[in-house]
Amino acid sequence: MTFPFFYSDTPGPDNHIEHLDENAAKHIYQVLRMKKGDKINITNGRGMLATATIGEQRKKECIATLTDIVQVPAHPHAAEVAISLVKNAARFEWFLEKATEIGISSVVPLVCERTERVHFRKDRMHNIMVSAMLQSRQAWLPELSDPVPFAQWVSSPSLLVRCIAHCLQDQKKHFREMTSANKDIAIAIGPEGDFTDNEISRALDNKCTPVTLGETRLRTETAGLVAAALMRIQ
Amino acid sequence: MTFPFFYSDTPGPDNHIEHLDENAAKHIYQVLRMKKGDKINITNGRGMLATATIGEQRKKECIATLTDIVQVPAHPHAAEVAISLVKNAARFEWFLEKATEIGISSVVPLVCERTERVHFRKDRMHNIMVSAMLQSRQAWLPELSDPVPFAQWVSSPSLLVRCIAHCLQDQKKHFREMTSANKDIAIAIGPEGDFTDNEISRALDNKCTPVTLGETRLRTETAGLVAAALMRIQ
Repeated sequence: MTFPFFYSDTPGPDNHIEHLDENAAKHIYQVLRMKKGDKINITNGRGMLATATIGEQRKKECIATLTDIVQVPAHPHAAEVAISLVKNAARFEWFLEKATEIGISSVVPLVCERTERVHFRKDRMHNIMVSAMLQSRQAWLPELSDPVPFAQWVSSPSLLVRCIAHCLQDQKKHFREMTSANKDIAIAIGPEGDFTDNEISRALDNKCTPVTLGETRLRTETAGLVAAALMRIQ
Repeated sequence: MTFPFFYSDTPGPDNHIEHLDENAAKHIYQVLRMKKGDKINITNGRGMLATATIGEQRKKECIATLTDIVQVPAHPHAAEVAISLVKNAARFEWFLEKATEIGISSVVPLVCERTERVHFRKDRMHNIMVSAMLQSRQAWLPELSDPVPFAQWVSSPSLLVRCIAHCLQDQKKHFREMTSANKDIAIAIGPEGDFTDNEISRALDNKCTPVTLGETRLRTETAGLVAAALMRIQ
């Protein structure tokens, strides 16, 4: 199945007929110059992947008939990046795009003590992730939660093995060791200026494993991407 | 040495007095609000790392006296990413920034058969890499060469173990195996639309090892970043 990918969060409810919106229609008819009878893929970002045949060109929508539906299994292991928001929204959005391409399972935007206050545009971020999922031809969209305070994230119950990548000189494992030894992992990445001592203590109290991502000092979003690559590119 | 980092490609020739330019002076006096007697680090991007004391504020420059000079050893292993130029310059620049943070040793911009023609702004790219080096507090700047045709890169003599990350279904090693087994590595990343069959044959004829970066389809710049992370974050 190598047709162009499109997204719909409720495909196929209506007798296997799917209505794609104006943007999708424009892309199908004007950019890709597709015609009635050509095929596309449609996914709901939750594993459903359908093949569909596009219909007569209409104003402002594209009607497609689903001909084949499969459920793509999710990656067998959870990979969560809990990452401080950063002041420059474009940098955070880059991270979301790349982490989606790499195929992590969830992103938790963190508000740490040193996180600068930023406006969180969840709709825009969701759209960026959808585009990246389609571009990389995947059927699973990483979950994006609302921002949570770090203290809340680190103390909430979780089935994942949690790590914290802080910059203090300390006994730390390389994150690569953690990813090769554990199946379901979450890593917390701090803001510019690092986690506070208070946050680090709290993480250790909650059995987070302190880890390093190597010797160079990485920006927040770069650390997030490196962590995503180490979790998924095995 | 945790002072702010500055760049000069010829530090200390003149009796250990360094003249930093208007941009650096502005950053020192206006952004960081530093004063005479405060300390900074200066690197030449080729391993030299100096500590310097800043002098009296002047118009349009900052004069600093070097007090300590060390030579930081280069990373013991070469890590080269030869990567197709991409149409959207911001995406290529983003790759350069991140690859510099991660600390690879060289970037070779490739012109492949399917590479779209783009204007290559080497000065601008150099500046982006310098900023990333300073930001991540490193003393080595990755080498950035002029764009070369892929055929030339792949057939030129090299001491590095060369890999090619193409997307054809084929017997391929995971790049992670290559990085754990080899010391000095180069990887070629193709353009949108992949390398051509012709290019892949030529690479195999020249003993390039075909590799995969995992199961999801990555954009050119994301593949470059993932490769950089696998080479350096060991």
